[in-house]
Amino acid sequence: GSDLLALEREKATFNVKELTLALYGSKELEKDNRILKILENDPVFDKSNLYFMGRTELFENALRKDKRLVQLIKEHKWNMEEIQAAVSFIDLPGPYGLHRGMFIPTIFGQGTEEQKKKFLIPALKYEIIGCYAQTELGHGSNVQGLETTATYIPETDEFEINSPYLTASKWWIGGLGRTANHAIVMAQLKSNGKDYGPHPFIIQIRDLETHQPLPGITVGDIGPKFGYNATDNGFMLFDHVRIPRFNMLSKFSQIKKGTGEYISPPNDKLSYGTMVFIRAMIVTSVRTSLARAATIAIRYSAVRRQFVDKDQPKKSKDGRIVETSVLDYTMQQYRLFPVIAQAYACFYTAKAMIDLYMKYLKQSSSGDFSLLADLHASSSGLKSLTTTMAVDSIEECRRACGGHGYSNFGGFVTFYQNYLPNITWEGDNYILTHQTTRYLLKTFREVVSNKNPEIYASQSKKNPTLTYILDYINNPNQVCNATTSLDFKNNELQLRAFGHRAAYLIANAVDQIDNQNKSWNSMLIEVNRISRAHCQYLLVKNFITAIQEQPQPITDEKLRILHSSPALKKVMESVCNLFVLHTMEKEIGEFFECRFITDSEAKLLRTQVYDLLQEIRPNAVSLVDAFNIPEFVLQSALGRYDGKVYETMIDWASKEPLNGITLDVNPNSEVLFRNKNKAKL
Amino acid sequence: GSDLLALEREKATFNVKELTLALYGSKELEKDNRILKILENDPVFDKSNLYFMGRTELFENALRKDKRLVQLIKEHKWNMEEIQAAVSFIDLPGPYGLHRGMFIPTIFGQGTEEQKKKFLIPALKYEIIGCYAQTELGHGSNVQGLETTATYIPETDEFEINSPYLTASKWWIGGLGRTANHAIVMAQLKSNGKDYGPHPFIIQIRDLETHQPLPGITVGDIGPKFGYNATDNGFMLFDHVRIPRFNMLSKFSQIKKGTGEYISPPNDKLSYGTMVFIRAMIVTSVRTSLARAATIAIRYSAVRRQFVDKDQPKKSKDGRIVETSVLDYTMQQYRLFPVIAQAYACFYTAKAMIDLYMKYLKQSSSGDFSLLADLHASSSGLKSLTTTMAVDSIEECRRACGGHGYSNFGGFVTFYQNYLPNITWEGDNYILTHQTTRYLLKTFREVVSNKNPEIYASQSKKNPTLTYILDYINNPNQVCNATTSLDFKNNELQLRAFGHRAAYLIANAVDQIDNQNKSWNSMLIEVNRISRAHCQYLLVKNFITAIQEQPQPITDEKLRILHSSPALKKVMESVCNLFVLHTMEKEIGEFFECRFITDSEAKLLRTQVYDLLQEIRPNAVSLVDAFNIPEFVLQSALGRYDGKVYETMIDWASKEPLNGITLDVNPNSEVLFRNKNKAKL
Ligand SMILES: Cc1cc2nc3c(=O)[nH]c(=O)nc-3n(C[C@H](O)[C@H](O)[C@H](O)COP(=O)(O)OP(=O)(O)OC[C@H]3O[C@@H](n4cnc5c(N)ncnc54)[C@H](O)[C@@H]3O)c2cc1C
Ligand SMILES: Cc1cc2nc3c(=O)[nH]c(=O)nc-3n(C[C@H](O)[C@H](O)[C@H](O)COP(=O)(O)OP(=O)(O)OC[C@H]3O[C@@H](n4cnc5c(N)ncnc54)[C@H](O)[C@@H]3O)c2cc1C
Repeated sequence: GSDLLALEREKATFNVKELTLALYGSKELEKDNRILKILENDPVFDKSNLYFMGRTELFENALRKDKRLVQLIKEHKWNMEEIQAAVSFIDLPGPYGLHRGMFIPTIFGQGTEEQKKKFLIPALKYEIIGCYAQTELGHGSNVQGLETTATYIPETDEFEINSPYLTASKWWIGGLGRTANHAIVMAQLKSNGKDYGPHPFIIQIRDLETHQPLPGITVGDIGPKFGYNATDNGFMLFDHVRIPRFNMLSKFSQIKKGTGEYISPPNDKLSYGTMVFIRAMIVTSVRTSLARAATIAIRYSAVRRQFVDKDQPKKSKDGRIVETSVLDYTMQQYRLFPVIAQAYACFYTAKAMIDLYMKYLKQSSSGDFSLLADLHASSSGLKSLTTTMAVDSIEECRRACGGHGYSNFGGFVTFYQNYLPNITWEGDNYILTHQTTRYLLKTFREVVSNKNPEIYASQSKKNPTLTYILDYINNPNQVCNATTSLDFKNNELQLRAFGHRAAYLIANAVDQIDNQNKSWNSMLIEVNRISRAHCQYLLVKNFITAIQEQPQPITDEKLRILHSSPALKKVMESVCNLFVLHTMEKEIGEFFECRFITDSEAKLLRTQVYDLLQEIRPNAVSLVDAFNIPEFVLQSALGRYDGKVYETMIDWASKEPLNGITLDVNPNSEVLFRNKNKAKL
Repeated sequence: GSDLLALEREKATFNVKELTLALYGSKELEKDNRILKILENDPVFDKSNLYFMGRTELFENALRKDKRLVQLIKEHKWNMEEIQAAVSFIDLPGPYGLHRGMFIPTIFGQGTEEQKKKFLIPALKYEIIGCYAQTELGHGSNVQGLETTATYIPETDEFEINSPYLTASKWWIGGLGRTANHAIVMAQLKSNGKDYGPHPFIIQIRDLETHQPLPGITVGDIGPKFGYNATDNGFMLFDHVRIPRFNMLSKFSQIKKGTGEYISPPNDKLSYGTMVFIRAMIVTSVRTSLARAATIAIRYSAVRRQFVDKDQPKKSKDGRIVETSVLDYTMQQYRLFPVIAQAYACFYTAKAMIDLYMKYLKQSSSGDFSLLADLHASSSGLKSLTTTMAVDSIEECRRACGGHGYSNFGGFVTFYQNYLPNITWEGDNYILTHQTTRYLLKTFREVVSNKNPEIYASQSKKNPTLTYILDYINNPNQVCNATTSLDFKNNELQLRAFGHRAAYLIANAVDQIDNQNKSWNSMLIEVNRISRAHCQYLLVKNFITAIQEQPQPITDEKLRILHSSPALKKVMESVCNLFVLHTMEKEIGEFFECRFITDSEAKLLRTQVYDLLQEIRPNAVSLVDAFNIPEFVLQSALGRYDGKVYETMIDWASKEPLNGITLDVNPNSEVLFRNKNKAKL
C-alpha cells in the first residue's frame, strides 16, 4: 500500500501543504494542531476500542470523555473555537453535547441578566447540566403544535407545566435521558385563558444530590438509534409541575407578575440571525464530512487493486503484469472525484456564508437588516441541499470500497451513522426548502411588479438572487450555445446555465400559483426543485468567485495563498469545473426542460466531464491529502495515510471480543458458548 | 392512530385479501401462515429484546435460534421452501446461515457421489457445519486473482493448502469466525508446476470435539460491521495444510491420482444456471424488502399529522380543525408511492424470472441452452438494479418518517443494515453491469450484421431484448408523440419509450467502441447506464405483461385472481403506470438525449405522474396492507397494523437498559455510573 500511495503523491502537480494552508489559514491550522496533540496524548481520548463497544459501554466512555474535556477546557482556557475543534476531533457526540451546544447558547441569547446570573454562570461551570427540550412524541417540525403547556398561576406567581396527552411527551431530547438536571422546555404559554404559543422555560428536572427525577416528572432514555448512541436522547412527561415565574426565559417576551399580562417580543429578527449562524456551521461540518469520506475512499481505491485491465495492463517495476488500482477505472472516478469536488465547493460556500453573516452582524448592529431575508432563505436551502449531499456521498464512498467498506474498520460506518441525523434535525430537509422557495417566489414577484428595474439592477451587484432573476426577465430564452466541449469550462456560461434554470423554475411556479390557482401543497415537488436549483447556483457561484481573478491586494489570507500559486489555481480550476459540470450533468433533465441545452450539447458536456476526470486523476490522492484530516479522526484501516490497509484490518480484527468465545455448534446441545470469558479488549 | 388507519381502509376501491391472494397464491399463503404460527408461539424466536443487544449477546441469540430452527426442521419435516420461509420470518442472519445457503448447495452441485456421501449426509444432519470461503482480504470481485494455493503432492496423493501472503487470508466468510468446522475453500489449483485457476476444496478446519482450529490454521471473526452482526464473518490463514486429494470437489474437474493430470470440466453452463437462480431469489427478496419498507412508511404517514394545510384544512368529526396527515402532502406521496410501485414491479419481475428459469431448466435437460445467455445477462443486471433500488428506497422511507425513523423502534434501522450487503455480495452492483452490457452489445452487433432479419423477427417474440433492438434498427428516430398527459398511460408508448432508449444507448456504445476505438474502461459509465436502461425496460415489460389482457384460459392461479376482479385490475393499472412514468421522469435526461421526448411532452409526463399520485392516494394504505407483511417481521412501532404508534414507542423505550443506570454528572468526579446494575431486559 505505502509504495502505491507514494507513487500517487509523486504525480501531484501542486504543493499539498500550500493547498492545506489555502483552505484553513495559518491560525486555524496552528490551533488544530495544538489541540489535536493534547487529545492524542491523553489516554482518556483513546479510540482503539470504540468499534467493539455496546451501547452502555459506549455511553460510559463518552461521559468519561466529556468530563475530561471540561477539565481540559478549564486547564487550557479554551475559547469557543478551540472547544469546537476539540469536540470535532473527539468525534463522539456524548451526554454533555446539548448542554454545550443548545442549553448554554439559548440562555445566553434569550435570558435576562438575572436569569444569566442564576443559570448561565453555574451552567458554564457545569454545576448544572442542561438540555434543550423542544420536540415531542407527536410534534417535531410543527413547533406551533407542541402540546406541553405552561399555564400562569397568578395566585402563587408560578407556571404549571403539564403534559396533557401521551403525545405531549418530550422526545428525542439529547442529554435528557440520563444526564441533564435542567432543561429548557418549549411549552405553550397560557395566561388568563389565552394562548400565546410556544415559549422557552428553564426547569430543574433532577435532584442535584441524588440525581433522581423531581416529583411530577417522568424521564428516561428513548432507546437505541441508527447512530448517536453515546448520547442519551430522552423523553419527559410533566404532571402539573410548578416552577417560579422567573424561569420563563424573558429577554424578548414576558408575563407580568400577578396580572398575567403578556408582553410580546419587539421583533424576531435576532433569533433568525442565530439560525443562520447554526446553518453556516452545519455547512462547515458538511465540508469536513465530505473531505473525510473522500479521503478514505480515494486512498483505499489507490491501494486496492482488482482485475487486470486488458486494454491497458499495468506493469510493476520488474515488468510483471499487475492488477489495476480501482482508482483507474473510470466508473470509480466518476463516483468518487465529484465527492472531492463537492467538499471543495462546500469549503468556499461555508466561507462565503460566514463572511456574509459577519457582514450582516455588523450592519444589523446599526439597524440595517437588509441582508437577513436572503441570508435566511439561502442558509435554509443550503443546509438542506448540502447535508443530503453529504449523507449520500459518504454512503457512495462507502459502497465504492466494496466489502471492506461494510466493516466498521473501514471508518465509514459509525461516522455515517452519527452524521445521518443532520438531514432531519435543525429543520427536516424537505420542509426547509419551503422557506427558501417562498422567499424566491416573493422576490420574483417583486422584481416583476417593480416599475423601476434600475434600482434592482444596482442592488443586484450585491445580491446574486436578484442578478439571475433579472437576467432571466431580460432574456427568458437564453441558450447554452456551446460548440465544443471546451466551451463548458467557461465560467460565464456555467453561471448563466445555473441562473437561468433556477429563474425558469421560479417563473414557472409563480405562474402556476398566481395564474393557474395551484395550491401550495400541489406545488411541493416544484418547491423542492426550486430550492435545490437556487442553492446549486450559490455553490457554483461561490466556488467560481473564489477562484476567479481577485481585486488586488487580496486581504484574505486563504485567498491570497490560493492566488499566489499558479499550480494551486490550476488544480482548483479543474476541481471547480468538475463540481459545476458534474452537477449540471446530474440535473440535465432540468437544463433540457428550460431549453438551455440541446441533446448534442449534452453530449459535449458529458465529454467534458470525462475529460475532467482524466485531468484530476494524477492529483486525486494529493487533493484529499490536502484536507488534512488526521488519522485520529479517520479511524480507518482503509484510509490510512501510509496505505497499510491489510495489516491494519488483521490487527484490528484480532481484538474482536467474540474471538475469545468457543461455541458448542451441535444443534442438539443446549450449550451455546462453552466458555463465557470474552476476549480482553 | 387506529381510527385514522380505519378511515384509510374504508377508502380502498378493492378487496385487500383478494390482492394478497393474487400476489402470493393460496399455497404460499397457507404455508407462510402455518410456519409463522409455529415461530410466533415458540419463545426462542421472541424478538422483543433484539434492539437492545450488543454484538456478543446478539450472536448468542442467533445461535440459539439457529439451533432451534434445526430442531423444528426435523420435527416438521420442512422442505426447502418452508425452511426459506422460516428463515425470512426469523429475520436474523445467524451462524448457520452459510452452512444452509452455500455449503450444502455447493457440495450438492459440485460434489461427486462419494463426496456427497462423505460430506453432504453429515452436513444435512448438522453433524458438520460448513461455510463458503471464496473472498480473501485482497480479492473479492476478481476471483481469478485469489492467492490461496492448493498444490497437488503426488507422493502422498494430497493437496497442500497455503496462504502465501497476508492478503491471501480468507476474509468476510460467513459462519467461519466462530462456528464452522468445515469450509469450502476456493484456492488456486497447481499441479505439476502448472496453474489451473481457482477450484473448490472441502477442508476440515476445527476439531469436532474441542472446536479448536486444526494445526496450521489461523481463524477468527473479522469484527463489527454495519449490520449482519449476528453472523460471524471470519478470516482464515493456512500454513501448508495437507488434505486428501479426495477433498477437491470433483464433479466437473479433477486431478488424477499420482500423475497429477488435470481433467477439465465439460462445460460451465450448469454453474451459470445456479447463479441465475440465486439472482432470481435476490430479486424476490427485493420485492419483500420494498414491501416491508413501504408498509412502515405509508402506515406511519397516515397516522402522523403535522401542520395544518392552510389551503385545505382538515376537520375532525366534531368540526375542529386538525393537523394534516403527512401522507396528504404531495411531496411525501412523491417520495413514498413510487416505492409501493417498485415493490409491485419487483413482484412481477421476480415471478417472470422464476418462470423463465423453470422453462430454461426444462429445455436444458434436453440439451437446449438457448435461453441461458439472455437469462444470465438479464439476471445480473436485474440483481444490480433492483438491490440498489431497494437499499435506496428503504432509506428514503426511513427518512420520510422524520426523527422517529432514526430510532431502532421505527423498524428500519436493523432491517436496512442487514439488507445493505446485497448491493456488494453476489457480485458488486457496478461490476455486474459489465456482464449485462457485454451481452447486449454482442447481441446488437449480431442483429446488425445478420443478413436475415426475419429470423430474428420470429425469435424476437420470445426474447424482449431482440424485440427492442430490432425496433430501433427499423426505426431509429422514434418519438413520443404525446399530445395530452393521458397519452402517457398508453402501454404501447411506454414500451416504445423504454425500448428505444435502451437500444439507443447500446447503438451509441457499439459505435464508440467499434468505430471510435474507445477502450472498455473509458466506456464504463455508459456500460452502467445501458444495463440500467435494459433492466428498467424488463421491469416495465414484465409489469405491463402481467396486467394486460391474458390469453384465455388463464392457467396461473395468481394471474387468474388478478384478472377476474376489475377492481384489482384497475388499481394495478394505476400502480403500473406510476412505476413506469415515475421511472421515466427520474431518467428524463436520457429520454431527452435519445430525442424521444420534447420539453413540452416532459411537462405532460410530469402532470400525469402527479395525477397518478392522486389516483393512488385512497388506496395507499390498502396497497401496503395487501403485501401482508406480518407484525412479527416488521418489528416496528411506526408500521403497526393497528396504528398504535405512540403507545408502542413509550412502551419499548421503558425497556432500554440505560434507564437502570444513575449517573454522577459532576465533571470533577471520577465516578461515572453510581450503580452498575443495568435495567432488566
Ligand atoms: C438524533 C436526533 C437528535 C435530536 N435531538 C433533539 C434535541 O436535542 N432537542 C429537540 O428538541 N429535538 C431533537 N430532535 C428532534 C428533531 O428536531 C426532529 O426529529 C425534527 O425536527 C423532525 O421533526 P419530526 O420528527 O417531527 O418529523 P415530521 O415533521 O413528523 O416529519 C415526518 C415527515 O413528514 C414530512 N412533512 C411534515 N410536514 C410536512 C409539510 N408541511 N409538507 C411536506 N412534508 C411534510 C417530513 O418531510 C417528513 O418526511 C432530534 C432528532 C434526532 C433524530
Ligand atoms: C456482509 C458480507 C458477507 C459476505 N459473505 C461472504 C461469504 O460468506 N463468502 C465469501 O466468499 N465472500 C463473502 N463476502 C465477500 C463479498 O462477496 C465481496 O465483498 C464482494 O464480492 C465484493 O468484492 P470486493 O470487496 O473485493 O470489492 P472490490 O472488487 O475490491 O471492489 C472495490 C471497488 O472497486 C470497483 N471495481 C473493482 N473492479 C472493477 C472494475 N473492473 N471496473 C470498475 N470498477 C471496479 C468496485 O465497483 C468497487 O467499487 C461477504 C461480504 C459482505 C459485505
